[in-house]
Amino acid sequence: MDDVTLYIGEPSCDMAHLAHLELLTPTLEESERFFVEYLGMTVSERRGNSVYLRGWDDYAHHTLKLTAAPVPGMEHFAYRVSSPQALERRVTKLERSGLGLGWIEGDAGHGPAYRFRTPDGHVGELVWEVEWYQPTPETKPALKNQASRFPARGCNVRRLDHINVFAADVRATRRFLQENLGLKLTECIIFDGGTEKGAWVTANNKGYEIAITEDQTGARGRFHHVCYAVDTREEVLRAADIAIEFGYRIEYGPHKHAVQQTVFLYVIEPGGHRIEIGCPGARLVLAPDWKPIVWTEAERKRGQAWGLPTVATFHTYGTPPVEVTR
Amino acid sequence: MDDVTLYIGEPSCDMAHLAHLELLTPTLEESERFFVEYLGMTVSERRGNSVYLRGWDDYAHHTLKLTAAPVPGMEHFAYRVSSPQALERRVTKLERSGLGLGWIEGDAGHGPAYRFRTPDGHVGELVWEVEWYQPTPETKPALKNQASRFPARGCNVRRLDHINVFAADVRATRRFLQENLGLKLTECIIFDGGTEKGAWVTANNKGYEIAITEDQTGARGRFHHVCYAVDTREEVLRAADIAIEFGYRIEYGPHKHAVQQTVFLYVIEPGGHRIEIGCPGARLVLAPDWKPIVWTEAERKRGQAWGLPTVATFHTYGTPPVEVTR
Amino acid sequence: MDDVTLYIGEPSCDMAHLAHLELLTPTLEESERFFVEYLGMTVSERRGNSVYLRGWDDYAHHTLKLTAAPVPGMEHFAYRVSSPQALERRVTKLERSGLGLGWIEGDAGHGPAYRFRTPDGHVGELVWEVEWYQPTPETKPALKNQASRFPARGCNVRRLDHINVFAADVRATRRFLQENLGLKLTECIIFDGGTEKGAWVTANNKGYEIAITEDQTGARGRFHHVCYAVDTREEVLRAADIAIEFGYRIEYGPHKHAVQQTVFLYVIEPGGHRIEIGCPGARLVLAPDWKPIVWTEAERKRGQAWGLPTVATFHTYGTPPVEVTR
Amino acid sequence: MDDVTLYIGEPSCDMAHLAHLELLTPTLEESERFFVEYLGMTVSERRGNSVYLRGWDDYAHHTLKLTAAPVPGMEHFAYRVSSPQALERRVTKLERSGLGLGWIEGDAGHGPAYRFRTPDGHVGELVWEVEWYQPTPETKPALKNQASRFPARGCNVRRLDHINVFAADVRATRRFLQENLGLKLTECIIFDGGTEKGAWVTANNKGYEIAITEDQTGARGRFHHVCYAVDTREEVLRAADIAIEFGYRIEYGPHKHAVQQTVFLYVIEPGGHRIEIGCPGARLVLAPDWKPIVWTEAERKRGQAWGLPTVATFHTYGTPPVEVTR
Repeated sequence: MDDVTLYIGEPSCDMAHLAHLELLTPTLEESERFFVEYLGMTVSERRGNSVYLRGWDDYAHHTLKLTAAPVPGMEHFAYRVSSPQALERRVTKLERSGLGLGWIEGDAGHGPAYRFRTPDGHVGELVWEVEWYQPTPETKPALKNQASRFPARGCNVRRLDHINVFAADVRATRRFLQENLGLKLTECIIFDGGTEKGAWVTANNKGYEIAITEDQTGARGRFHHVCYAVDTREEVLRAADIAIEFGYRIEYGPHKHAVQQTVFLYVIEPGGHRIEIGCPGARLVLAPDWKPIVWTEAERKRGQAWGLPTVATFHTYGTPPVEVTR
Repeated sequence: MDDVTLYIGEPSCDMAHLAHLELLTPTLEESERFFVEYLGMTVSERRGNSVYLRGWDDYAHHTLKLTAAPVPGMEHFAYRVSSPQALERRVTKLERSGLGLGWIEGDAGHGPAYRFRTPDGHVGELVWEVEWYQPTPETKPALKNQASRFPARGCNVRRLDHINVFAADVRATRRFLQENLGLKLTECIIFDGGTEKGAWVTANNKGYEIAITEDQTGARGRFHHVCYAVDTREEVLRAADIAIEFGYRIEYGPHKHAVQQTVFLYVIEPGGHRIEIGCPGARLVLAPDWKPIVWTEAERKRGQAWGLPTVATFHTYGTPPVEVTR
Repeated sequence: MDDVTLYIGEPSCDMAHLAHLELLTPTLEESERFFVEYLGMTVSERRGNSVYLRGWDDYAHHTLKLTAAPVPGMEHFAYRVSSPQALERRVTKLERSGLGLGWIEGDAGHGPAYRFRTPDGHVGELVWEVEWYQPTPETKPALKNQASRFPARGCNVRRLDHINVFAADVRATRRFLQENLGLKLTECIIFDGGTEKGAWVTANNKGYEIAITEDQTGARGRFHHVCYAVDTREEVLRAADIAIEFGYRIEYGPHKHAVQQTVFLYVIEPGGHRIEIGCPGARLVLAPDWKPIVWTEAERKRGQAWGLPTVATFHTYGTPPVEVTR
Repeated sequence: MDDVTLYIGEPSCDMAHLAHLELLTPTLEESERFFVEYLGMTVSERRGNSVYLRGWDDYAHHTLKLTAAPVPGMEHFAYRVSSPQALERRVTKLERSGLGLGWIEGDAGHGPAYRFRTPDGHVGELVWEVEWYQPTPETKPALKNQASRFPARGCNVRRLDHINVFAADVRATRRFLQENLGLKLTECIIFDGGTEKGAWVTANNKGYEIAITEDQTGARGRFHHVCYAVDTREEVLRAADIAIEFGYRIEYGPHKHAVQQTVFLYVIEPGGHRIEIGCPGARLVLAPDWKPIVWTEAERKRGQAWGLPTVATFHTYGTPPVEVTR
């Protein structure tokens, strides 16, 4: 456990922030409706069999790409780097890691991106050139320091907050992200015996941008959830009120996590992905010498912040779906 | 206006976060009561004629030092750097700027600090060695990823958010902070004719950590306010409810700023300082290529976000107090 | 001032609650859009040149009737009585008052109603037979103890809260409502010299259902505003955020009234009426021997709960609009 | 099921509101600390081995009386009537019911009261003469239409909201309250087979003031919980945050009930009583012809509003404690 450290190697600012993710969905139309009508996101573009969406204060062209496919899953996630030089540095590191996948030309909303795999098989990419969202007359905000108009529709999610990936080997995935992307480890769960059951890493002052959860089905490289942030904890409760009106299935919450203390709600969208509406409050990790919090098995037995046990499906349900064999 | 740019010089991560400030107060006991009973802060230490305080989730020994003195004012503010190397780099730069003041040995809660003056005369310091707050049995939090126990007293402010300094020359002060500390400019106000009336800079993802407001009395180097953050906008309203029960004077708010969109309340503490209880919501500045927002004179005439005009005293009242001559 | 009393005459339960109001608007389409898209209300019926609307938890067919007319104003307001016997008793009283206007057959959503005038000229009616709203497949709530589906649109106002009428003679109007409808006086403002500047009456545990404000233009029988209630104070702040996105004019607020302590926002709808989005919190007037609160001139000079002065237009702007002559 | 009706007999306004309750506690000092430090209530008087407490906006001398005793339980609850005449009417009815217990002289804070038993054995009383709380210099509110100063301590509960009593025979208890006190039935749960599992009655516009829950231990006349109301749903979440800091046991919540839709938190106080911090929002039962909502067994199987199953102890844990035999 002597590698539970904020950084592996030198502290880095090369990553700016989690930029976007692409989710495959077998029900593109119903999934789009979930994100637009329920979450309150907006479509910025359609291209081929993909739809590009963002929250009202996401500055970029999109933070979510939905693509039609037979089986749900996360196609890739993306990090925006701090500068072209940072991109070069990190591409070099990734090439050396043996997990680099090479360059792609770009996509709607962003320029060339360098792709890589995590040890568990998740596909990520690094990008610098990103298109800023240009409001239309319908989406122009009253206040210009806001990316677009507050939609006043559904949950009104403000911005992408984080993703959570399932991994057969949490530690390996976490170390990979620390070493190759320079991410910081803020919290983790290590059970008696030393297995790392969960890890939370970030590029910046958010408590976490990528969470890694042990996949108790034994599968590799699956997707756990994506979280969009709302401003207040009350809005997480409202998200629950609205979910039941839409008839969407609430898997878990509202409640507050002990780890990271986000007030959360988990809802299953029509394509099968787990979606979180979360509120981090004003909690930020500002200290440059933050010591990663290590939660023990005994501590996790106490349940979430206010005592609610974690639902069993939280450790097995993900996308793509797998048979629960253990 | 071609210097309205995110960074002057190379992008920098040398600064980690605004660390603390020292306020002089002619009414130490009443001021302490204001911060402890009304804001809900906690005293971590008393030394000489100073009291050291922090919000319940401020990780460090203190974020506020109150010192008895005949006239109220801000004695100094402090930035924590990202690393010892960052400190060296910045000290070198400050020495070259001609505004360096040299090293001090340290204080309760932190080690050696390098002091400097802004062009307007505000005294700042950079520090690396900082003592983490150690909870006592009375202040131990239930959840260990929290600096101390939620006090359930007064406004329950979570952490230091930002300071706002008055300046005769906003632009000079802003450029100084950008050049010498590597801070980023996120928003500013420039009136017809080109005068920079306000500027907001930050080291990190918070929209701002230091705001600079034009001092319409013509005085130099005065203090405008310090802001402590609460998690929700409702808690800003509660702060107003509680202020009137304590009989503290509400100068302005609750309302929402157009610039930075913080929901705010300004209260005058017994020593005369303006104190803000604010909620930034989930708004963060994540983009590495954020273009500073420039507000025009016409835009500022519209008042704050929901139309409230700025109170006249906002441009003249500060500490130390001065005669309002223009 | 010896008539500042909870009831005039015997305590009464004859009135159940403020039922609805009819507003005339020269811009029916834009006004409808305001109530439906901005407030989040729903149209239950259209009939002739009228539109009938309700909040998501208003149990009745409608609480607001919008009717096209050249000049904006309140056509009438309505109270629902507790029983057919209560209706008889009150009709008898109103007939004897000399201000009775006789029966009307009914309207969309309700049966026969007895109309009357207040001393100032406002037209009111009493009704017993009221049609309960029947949800459609689109408006069916997930939980059946709720009148209809939470719309997740705009301000999501829950229900009608109160109306505020302008009066040249507040005291006469207030006494009329106490004597003839059996309403209770909970708070009032009486200036030095004895003029009653405002009065707040209710049928039930709500702090007020009808407020009467002195019309400083000297006009008689005008309308000040109608308020729809939201569950939380945060939602009043959101209502302000949404108002500016729609480009609706915020006249006043958000802030908290000293009288009754409602957290309020006043917006001017396209037809010219002042509309309030308000939150009373959990405040209820439960005591059967509540002593009406009398606010003095000195107390009102302190402004609203948190110190904001009342905007000048609050005492002159109403519908129908009049020249402000004094 | 033909007696599931709003009123039994004539609609009545004889009851004004639930006034207070007396809880026996084997740990008077720790229980007092729970109500004062955690809930934020204030002691208005001590007399003998009892302590009298109230929420900051409870207008009366007390709403909670804590009395030292070896075994926890509810000693009695009290209703305030609307008038002396109402008291006479109801005393007559209770005497005829055979469940009247006669007059007591009064207590700290109130005058003579007429006592009675419910069919299950709960002791209640009716009172008219009630002493209004007189603020001290320490508890004087800034705004005079508020019973006392907002304490800014703990959960800051505003007022008594409701009690919930366990009963072996819910229907008999509910009918008794309807017939003898004139309370209204707003919601109930009736399982297949016709057993009434829960009933909610009120005197006024609050959805409920007394809830009756089937005691699955078979015991009679036990106490389930008392609820104090906060203004916002966010404050219920804060109550959970504060509970864990104090180390008090959260039994259930935060979540939202399907029945009545209160957002709730249940905490066990040191003496053993279940205490609820709840927020009803702006939901009121205003309709004079409200049709009681009947929840079916199938509907209750779906859990609470957002899907959380009811904890098993909710149907068995109460005071006095009993062995769970079935």
